[in-house]
Amino acid sequence: MAPPGEGRDAALLPEFPRGPLDTYRARASFSWKELALFAEGEDMLRFKKTIYSALENDPLFARSPGAHLSLEKYRELNFLRCKRIFEYDFLSVGGMFENPLKVSTLTQCLGMYDWSLAAKYLLHTLVFGSAVFSSGSERHFAYIQKIFSMEIFGCFALTELSHGSNAKAIRTTAHYNPATEEFIIHSPDFEAAKFWIGNMGKTATHAVVFAQLYVPGGQCHGLHAFIIQIRDPKTLLPMPGVMVGDIGKKLGLNGLDNGFAVFHKVRVPRQSLLNRMGDITPEGTYVSPFKDARQRLGASLGSLSWGRVAIMGMAVANLKLAVSIAVRFSATRRQFGPTEDEEIPVLEYQTQQWRLLPYLAAAYALDHFSKSLFLDLVEFQRGLAAGDRSARQAELGREIHALASAGKSLASWTAQQGIQECREACGGHGYLAVNRLGVLRDDNDPNSTYEGDNNVLLQQTSNYLLGLLACRVQDGACFRSPLKSVDFLDSYPSILDQRFEVSSVADCLDSAAPRCFPPGGLGEIHRKSRARAVPTSSVPPACPMPSSHHSPICQLCVTENSLKPQPCLCLAFASLCVW
Amino acid sequence: MAPPGEGRDAALLPEFPRGPLDTYRARASFSWKELALFAEGEDMLRFKKTIYSALENDPLFARSPGAHLSLEKYRELNFLRCKRIFEYDFLSVGGMFENPLKVSTLTQCLGMYDWSLAAKYLLHTLVFGSAVFSSGSERHFAYIQKIFSMEIFGCFALTELSHGSNAKAIRTTAHYNPATEEFIIHSPDFEAAKFWIGNMGKTATHAVVFAQLYVPGGQCHGLHAFIIQIRDPKTLLPMPGVMVGDIGKKLGLNGLDNGFAVFHKVRVPRQSLLNRMGDITPEGTYVSPFKDARQRLGASLGSLSWGRVAIMGMAVANLKLAVSIAVRFSATRRQFGPTEDEEIPVLEYQTQQWRLLPYLAAAYALDHFSKSLFLDLVEFQRGLAAGDRSARQAELGREIHALASAGKSLASWTAQQGIQECREACGGHGYLAVNRLGVLRDDNDPNSTYEGDNNVLLQQTSNYLLGLLACRVQDGACFRSPLKSVDFLDSYPSILDQRFEVSSVADCLDSAAPRCFPPGGLGEIHRKSRARAVPTSSVPPACPMPSSHHSPICQLCVTENSLKPQPCLCLAFASLCVW
Repeated sequence: MAPPGEGRDAALLPEFPRGPLDTYRARASFSWKELALFAEGEDMLRFKKTIYSALENDPLFARSPGAHLSLEKYRELNFLRCKRIFEYDFLSVGGMFENPLKVSTLTQCLGMYDWSLAAKYLLHTLVFGSAVFSSGSERHFAYIQKIFSMEIFGCFALTELSHGSNAKAIRTTAHYNPATEEFIIHSPDFEAAKFWIGNMGKTATHAVVFAQLYVPGGQCHGLHAFIIQIRDPKTLLPMPGVMVGDIGKKLGLNGLDNGFAVFHKVRVPRQSLLNRMGDITPEGTYVSPFKDARQRLGASLGSLSWGRVAIMGMAVANLKLAVSIAVRFSATRRQFGPTEDEEIPVLEYQTQQWRLLPYLAAAYALDHFSKSLFLDLVEFQRGLAAGDRSARQAELGREIHALASAGKSLASWTAQQGIQECREACGGHGYLAVNRLGVLRDDNDPNSTYEGDNNVLLQQTSNYLLGLLACRVQDGACFRSPLKSVDFLDSYPSILDQRFEVSSVADCLDSAAPRCFPPGGLGEIHRKSRARAVPTSSVPPACPMPSSHHSPICQLCVTENSLKPQPCLCLAFASLCVW
Repeated sequence: MAPPGEGRDAALLPEFPRGPLDTYRARASFSWKELALFAEGEDMLRFKKTIYSALENDPLFARSPGAHLSLEKYRELNFLRCKRIFEYDFLSVGGMFENPLKVSTLTQCLGMYDWSLAAKYLLHTLVFGSAVFSSGSERHFAYIQKIFSMEIFGCFALTELSHGSNAKAIRTTAHYNPATEEFIIHSPDFEAAKFWIGNMGKTATHAVVFAQLYVPGGQCHGLHAFIIQIRDPKTLLPMPGVMVGDIGKKLGLNGLDNGFAVFHKVRVPRQSLLNRMGDITPEGTYVSPFKDARQRLGASLGSLSWGRVAIMGMAVANLKLAVSIAVRFSATRRQFGPTEDEEIPVLEYQTQQWRLLPYLAAAYALDHFSKSLFLDLVEFQRGLAAGDRSARQAELGREIHALASAGKSLASWTAQQGIQECREACGGHGYLAVNRLGVLRDDNDPNSTYEGDNNVLLQQTSNYLLGLLACRVQDGACFRSPLKSVDFLDSYPSILDQRFEVSSVADCLDSAAPRCFPPGGLGEIHRKSRARAVPTSSVPPACPMPSSHHSPICQLCVTENSLKPQPCLCLAFASLCVW
């Protein structure tokens, strides 16, 4: 391979345009091109470039910064853009199978442009499309072609007005009538209206609808998915018995039409049942490959776990955007300085670094985590498809579920807090809409809620860990898991005993030192450093607070290398300044 | 006084309309009417009722929930509403002096309706008006009458595109020309454009403009304020040499027209100088009651400290609104339950209580703090006006500055985090725009930035505290301040030695117990409670984590009284679940 910056790489990774960031870029201790190639790989970089170039050159994707689109106009534009993405055909079905990571890369590229677009595209193809593909059988595969040609437009209708987290308690009913070989789909009241359904508000013609399946005689077989036409594809008028509409403005993602639907005794053919998990004979007998309803529900909702891993990637993309905006601004914004005439970039201030750089690091760490977990999930799904019923496969499923539940919460909250910090670190300019931090915050926000509320999901991970703990306590088993994510717990007592051992203030600034505290707190470092390492003339005043009240980064303690010593924040507001 | 709920109180505090919250309200252990009278006082409750009744009955203030106003239309409406507030004349200048707390009450009432309205009103009357009144002299008082009749409409133009925090470095110039007895107001380049100025975008006719004052010969006397006409009050067309416009959409407060202005050698009469702090003779000699420029700047920017105290009240109002929305929703939203058929309100879950109730408590605490600090500031200003030059007056000024700096940061961040938690605790419904949590978050957001970035302001408080500490170390002085806010520091070693000492799980749930931890952490409580207090049958499983890793509220440790025991969150995500 040619050295980065030469030959083919120069086209793939051209130099940045010259500007006020040049000074900082010239000071980098590494080649950003090598880092990009290392982190993404050439193939993926090319794929991204294809997508971005297409959008950059297409007037449909041109933006008018500062323009104030009406809700109607924005949604119309978003639908047209979604349609155009299908025309570009960046990724065929074959391509998805060949390199599944390209699916999440495409989502993130579209999201970096506009999350409403990414959501609209994703909900139609991957959520609606995958549900038809994975829950249906051959008789439903005709829909797949129509999905990719956008002859029909779909949505995934699980949530109801009164039931989100508790999906099992969904109240829409599907009563089978053998006389006509039809199901009667019905919403008992407005609280059972399907609600929040992305694409349903204005544009979906078809919906995968979850309902409680009742056989003749009145027995309920639990939640099942049906594919139901809700609008005429030509006129977009609702089908008879379907009351469908838009739920209105949201905090973000307003290019996406989230909707509601109330079904009034809507008759659909028997074949509407997506029958991979359970079917009904023409006469009305229920048949299923699964023995109990709980197992069946788990299998039919299985496609939801992809969502959590996808959300990790989305949150990371938001964090990357926000941190890039804030760090670049901080490198060019000058305020105060050593003299009245010379102001320095705010990035030079310890406080600004302390606010932003941990989020920059988090973006890299979470990016790697989300990609590797995505590939683990691909491996798991391939095992499922191949009929792997080994103990390892089952254990892998549990571990991925636990990692995706915690990882989605961690990534979405880190992005939420990171974007907020970036907004504030850019001061007033961060509050101008044109600088995008507001849109990022608004569009990232539902990542904490959908596909499982973060607080609820964390309990899934806790359950998993407590289960492992119970095995250890009862059977003396070691902490072991297929992806080795829990193995370190075997040595947690010794890990927790580790202490931060440095002998000088300079060591404190060394990122290679583990970030724990000595038994005596940072005060101990002071004492050591005063005794040994720091020349007397530059000894900072000893931090007066007891070590238990130090914030992780005590400004007074580590002023040695700073351009502008700042007072010890931990004195007054230890609880506010802990990152 | 008649018992609450009878006689005149029934009109002042009518019963709530009957509804799904009745059950919880009936269970209250106190009278909400008594609490309201205690917290606000009858006079203030009547004042609020007057304001709210007027707005409720005036069609100009009617809202269309879900309507999507264009930026132009919203700003137009906001201006008309602002004008109407003057017509209602809720509070005369005399009324302000008589009961200054009514000023912040009026601001908060308007803000609870719409912060864009409160900001527009406040910027014109209190910020622009007060600057003219406090920095000007008798020759400027003719403006005051025009301000209250809205013949002119004003803004306060300090910040420039490239200078916010570092106000001393403002670069707009005012050169005095004795030949014409005029100042030449000039912006050297676009970075010196006045920027972010509320009301300047579309509606202000006059601005208090801060500029560096130069006398003939070229000596600079530092920042001074000038009152300058920027638009024709009839046509709203800009005055010659003034390039003025709107800075565009923001994350929130979009009813307010924030603007910019570039001055190109604009000639204004000598009398435009607001000359309380310094004046110029017709011949061009500078005269000032202050000896050095630093002291003069401090005095001319003195009116800014009101802003910080006002922001505390605004943030508290936002927190009150958000917590009310979230707690009411949680009391009516049912999800999961002890059986499949019976779902319980989400407010019954420990996690939901743990997420919301501390913010409810914070709203009460900060409400009291912001009001009492406001009254302290009134006392301080009265001392200033009366010419009090005592040591106590000076010390009071320093203490109020420190409290307002930290209090503004604490209140705005607590509100920011509280609103976010409320948004998430309401799940998807919290993400619907009509439920208002998004607007609250967006409108509260700049409270962390304007009138001093929170991180910068905290250093003001740190400086104050470190100053006191230096006195103690050098002179053995006690921690003492006029408002006694620092006196507790004298006993901080013993305070920090206090330990949480309880002997049973039930004691952990007692809010009267101090919220510290025993030397052994919550694990210690477990061991004690297992040994003594809890019947063996209901002993929860011992929390397996070392005590140093417990979160403040460990779910596993305090499940005894919960409806639905939940796994120990601290095991997996101690760092995420600490409040």
